[in-house]
This record gives sequence, C-alpha cells and structure tokens, in this order.
Amino acid sequence: MMPTSAFLQSLGITRPTAILDAVQARQNIRHMAQKAAQANIRFRPHFKTHQSAEIGQWFQTEGVTTITVSSFSMAHYFVEHGWQDITVAFPVNVREMDAINRLASQIQLGVLVESLATIDALQRGIQHPVQVWLEIDTGYHRTGLVWDDGDRILSLVRHLDSVEHLEFTGILTHTGQTYYARSRAEIQYLYQETTGRMQSIQDRLQQAGFSCQISIGDTPSCAVAGSFAGIDEIRPGNFVFYDQMMYQIGACRPDQLALAVACPVVGVYPERGQIVVYGGAVHLSKEALVETSGRAVFGYLQEIENGRLGRIAYDAPVISLSQEHGIIDVPPAMERKVTVGDIVLISPVHSCLTANLYPFYLTLTGENISRIR
Amino acid sequence: MMPTSAFLQSLGITRPTAILDAVQARQNIRHMAQKAAQANIRFRPHFKTHQSAEIGQWFQTEGVTTITVSSFSMAHYFVEHGWQDITVAFPVNVREMDAINRLASQIQLGVLVESLATIDALQRGIQHPVQVWLEIDTGYHRTGLVWDDGDRILSLVRHLDSVEHLEFTGILTHTGQTYYARSRAEIQYLYQETTGRMQSIQDRLQQAGFSCQISIGDTPSCAVAGSFAGIDEIRPGNFVFYDQMMYQIGACRPDQLALAVACPVVGVYPERGQIVVYGGAVHLSKEALVETSGRAVFGYLQEIENGRLGRIAYDAPVISLSQEHGIIDVPPAMERKVTVGDIVLISPVHSCLTANLYPFYLTLTGENISRIR
Repeated sequence: MMPTSAFLQSLGITRPTAILDAVQARQNIRHMAQKAAQANIRFRPHFKTHQSAEIGQWFQTEGVTTITVSSFSMAHYFVEHGWQDITVAFPVNVREMDAINRLASQIQLGVLVESLATIDALQRGIQHPVQVWLEIDTGYHRTGLVWDDGDRILSLVRHLDSVEHLEFTGILTHTGQTYYARSRAEIQYLYQETTGRMQSIQDRLQQAGFSCQISIGDTPSCAVAGSFAGIDEIRPGNFVFYDQMMYQIGACRPDQLALAVACPVVGVYPERGQIVVYGGAVHLSKEALVETSGRAVFGYLQEIENGRLGRIAYDAPVISLSQEHGIIDVPPAMERKVTVGDIVLISPVHSCLTANLYPFYLTLTGENISRIR
Repeated sequence: MMPTSAFLQSLGITRPTAILDAVQARQNIRHMAQKAAQANIRFRPHFKTHQSAEIGQWFQTEGVTTITVSSFSMAHYFVEHGWQDITVAFPVNVREMDAINRLASQIQLGVLVESLATIDALQRGIQHPVQVWLEIDTGYHRTGLVWDDGDRILSLVRHLDSVEHLEFTGILTHTGQTYYARSRAEIQYLYQETTGRMQSIQDRLQQAGFSCQISIGDTPSCAVAGSFAGIDEIRPGNFVFYDQMMYQIGACRPDQLALAVACPVVGVYPERGQIVVYGGAVHLSKEALVETSGRAVFGYLQEIENGRLGRIAYDAPVISLSQEHGIIDVPPAMERKVTVGDIVLISPVHSCLTANLYPFYLTLTGENISRIR
C-alpha cells in the first residue's frame, strides 16, 4: 500500500488542498436520499456545505430536485446550474429585495420569515409569488419564533396569508442544539422534542384552517432519526462530508468522513514531539472541538488506505493554528517517520467552514471539483 | 450626522462587506514607515494581512520597496504588481521548488530555513541565488531553531554557507508570544527579551566570521518598541488594519482600527436582548478573544462617525457565530433603535483572518480595493 505522503504527492499536490473522497460523499448522499424516500418525505438537502455544481449533480442522480441554500447569491449560482426549486433557509435579508424578485421570477423560491418587520418589508417589495416558511425556535435560540408562543405564531401566519405573493407553506426549524449533544441517545431525545414542539404548532395552525408542512434541518437529527414520522421535509447539509464534530457527537462513523486537507510538512521538532505544517486558520478554519480532557483541537492526522480516506490518528491532534501554520502533536513512533517535504492529511473539525476556504476540491482520483467563487 | 445604518446603505451595501477606513490605514502605514526611517532600519512590511496590490501602492508612496509575504503564491501576486524584493517568511515548503526557482530568477527572493532537511532539499533543487534567513525560536515555540542552541545554529549557518546559490543573510524571528501579552509593559519586556536573544546569536555568528542581520516581525513589538536598537529589519503586518486583539493586548488605540464588517440585521429579539445579523463564521472568522470575565467574543458593534470608523460599543459583543449567522448581545437602549433591514458594523477580533474571507474591501468613500483571489 502506498504511504499517504507518496499517494498525495502522486496527485501533484504542493500546497494546502481540500481532498474529497468522492466515493464516500456519493455513498453519504445515496444513504440519506434513500432514508428520505423510505420515509416518503421530501429531501431538500442543504447545499451550503459543498457549494458545488458538480456535487449537486450527484444529488440529481439520486433523484433530488429540491434544495436548500443559505443566501440569495448561493441560490443564484444553483439556478445557473439548473436547479428550479430552492429554499433560502436564512431569515430574509430584506436589503436584497432585487435578488429575491429576480429569483422568484425564475424558479420556485422559498423564503424564511419570523417577524412582522420582515413581512412588512416583503409586502412593500415582493413582485412574484414565493413560498413562505415560518421559522420556529425549538430551543436553539438563534433565530425564529419561540415555539410555545402560539398566539404570536398564529397571528403572523394570518397576517402573511393576507399579503399578495406570500404563500404560507409551513413551519421550519434548525435544531442546532444537537451540535452540543454527546451521544446518539441525546440527539434522539432532542429530535423527538423538536418533532413534538413542531407538531403542537402544526395542530394549532391546522385547527385555525391553515395547512402547514413541517421542515427540519440538522444533520445529527437526520442521521440518527429512525422514521421521520410527522415530518414533511428534511434539510440536512453537513452529512455529505461529515466531520470530526459530527463524529464526536455520535452523528456518524469515522468511515463516513469524506473531506480532509492535504498539508506539506515544513518543520519537525523531535524535542517537543511536534510537527508544523503549511496549513493554518486560512486552510482549516479556527473552529475547534473540545476533547473530554478539555483540550481544544482543530483536526487530526488521517491516512490514505487503499486509495480512500482511512484511519484517523486521534493521538496526532492539530493543537494550534495561526494564519498559515498548523502545529500537530505527534507520538514518537510517528514523528520518526515524518520528514520535511512530506504531505500529511488532516481530518477537519467542521467541514462546512473548511470547504468554504477553497475554490475547488481534489478527489482521490485526481479530479478537480469546482465550488462557487 | 448620518446614522451608521443609513451611511452604510448609502454605499450600496446589501450583504456582508469588508469595510476599510482608507484614511486610517494610510495613517497606520505612514506612522510605521516613519518609525522605521527614524530608527534607520529596513522596513519590510508583511503583506499577508491586506493581500492587496492597491494597498501595496500606499506603502510604495511611503518609500517602501521591500516586503514580506507568507507563501510563494502571494509572492507571485506581488511580483506581478511590480515588487522586486520579497521575503517569504514561512519555513520553505520544499514541494514548491518550481515556484521558488521561478521567483528567484525574477526578483531578489528571501527564504526562511531552520533545518538540515530543508537546506538539503534546496541544495538539490535551487538554480538561482536566494537570500537565506535562519529562523530562530525566541520563545513562541512554533517554528525555528531554539535560540540558545548556539552550536546547532552555527553548524547550520556553516552548512548553508557552503551551498551554491544560498546566501546567508541573517537571523529572523516572530515573537508571537506578544499576542498573549496583556499590557504595553509586557510587550516591551518580550521585545527586549527577544532582542537580547537575537543579539547573543548574532555575536556568536560574527565571532565565527559571518555577517548577520537581525529581522523581527510581530506588530505588537513594532508598535510598542521605542528605538529598534540592534535591529536591522522589521516585518510587521497587522498594523495596517489593527484589530480588537491588538487593542486588547495594548498594541494600538481604538482610533487606529481600520477594518470592520458591515452586516444586515435579520432578526431582533427584545425578550433575550439580542439581534442576529447576516454575518457569520464565513464573514468574520471563528477567531475569538476572551474577555476578562471569561466570555469568548467574536467582535463588537462599531459606529460610523463623520464618515470614519468611530466609537466601538464594548457593551454590544458578538457572542456566537454559525456559518452565516452572528448573534449580538445588545443593551436595551440600543436594541430599541435597531430594526430588521438595518446595516450594522462589526469590529473584528483578528483582521488578517477576517480580510482573508473577502475578494475586495469597500472604502468609506465607496471605492472597491481588490485583494488576491
């Protein structure tokens, strides 16, 4: 088996490069698409993680026609690549009314509202029909209407239903609190809690005469949930690559990780048991995970095995990042094998933020997969 | 005086945008250039912070002809924009020998070495003369030869001096430990310690017959030091913009900050004293500073005053970032004045990492200043 460094050099890598295990990414996509199909619910994957037209095609192959993005510019990019049904799952930025109208005139556009101020701004500016989802805060406390304030929710739905071009579609939530879970059981609990809270709102709205779909979004819930009973739509995004954070909270297995970063070694320090790579905050992002010991970590070394992303060295963590330097603690046996000029692979903490730092992915068979610029 | 939101809207801003106070940046540049000129030392500013050909011209106006960058690709960009004397202040990535030779054939190139392995790789590959700086670790423990290992340092200098095309120029250090200082006095102490350590190496090398310059690099030391006695060259970078981290450690005043991020408000939450902006980890970076209370903060709201970056609201910190959302704690009086659709300004924690996320800067007079892509 070719050593990892030799394999990466054979791909022509000389600088920090985002490495994609395309076989694994396609498996992750197929698995989630099948899970949604079996549950007979709509799969509207979030494309903010990969932001790539080519990876979008892999979803099309699995029958996906509806997608989620997090900005109007990202929606525009995917419209240019043929997508016709897009929800922008971010509270409407009313300063972009021109972009909203342009998109709404071209495709089936879904937007997210949560306040009277936003509905009023849409009322003043919107010129084409849009599907409107009401965002609900089911416990994450980032954005959305607090789930148990039924009066306010019903009043907003009544108001937006009276505005021309605004088509109330349903309620939508991001159960981001699952990212702080530490086991599959805890994710399961949070998923059930979210589903119950969303259904209580749906009941209230249906009693008032409104038909109302339920859309949920986070990768941990979608990865761990069994049947999606009572749910109409799921919008996971991170699952296409997964990452160390998803593994740490119990949302994936190590063999499901599909993204890593190749970094040249520029220094070896036996006296302090460390190596330094060309690969810093601008190549990995400063997102850290905190190990049970309390140590903050920015990634771990990973091997290539049989031409695929393989074993993760949890005894070789990236413990510090500056702009372009990464410092990695390595055990003595590993340190003796590493030399300046080798290329190592780092499994990142948060694949969405890491991918965002690159103009393209390089697959393990040497293909370039472009991203939005 | 026009309110901040109205001012930013008058610039045509609709999405997260890097805002540059060009007047302040040029003052920061002039101030540091004059300080170096008065000390009669070489000013070789680090361009990794701004990575902009136009901002480079502002340095040229102040008489700067020598610069520092952190990668060969960044060097290539500035060569294309007319720069002829560039040090790549990052341990040589020997995988990029082609780029090194191309640059060395075009300009006066300086590189950084710290190991026999790197010198051997250069010996095998280098085809044109390069200036070689030996990197010294004066206490930061990231890269470089440990400062008090004089035997090893002398032996490496002897070795590299025997290699064709490698021209030993001097010793170089980055006193990154100043970033953990908490006062000007502490920065002063670390600067003096570094200078003493570098001079002890210089003495040893001069006794052995080598002429040896001393190059130091960090913005805190360069901002706080008085005279630069015994130093030949300074390479600060961050001072062009400064940031909240520099202010926190005592390296600048609030009125010297020259970079901020404009973000549309998408949610207002009186019940929890927060607003949410379109502006997340991909617009600010996840770099945090820890306040004395122990709270991690990703930036603070800032005002525009008289068409310039103005007052910083230290009672309005960005307390959480996800990919595209920023959550800001705001005091009640401020919260009552903010509405959905306003544009607020955020003073970032680490300007280098924030600037890296944008393709251009927008000045307060509405000009676009491009960056490397």
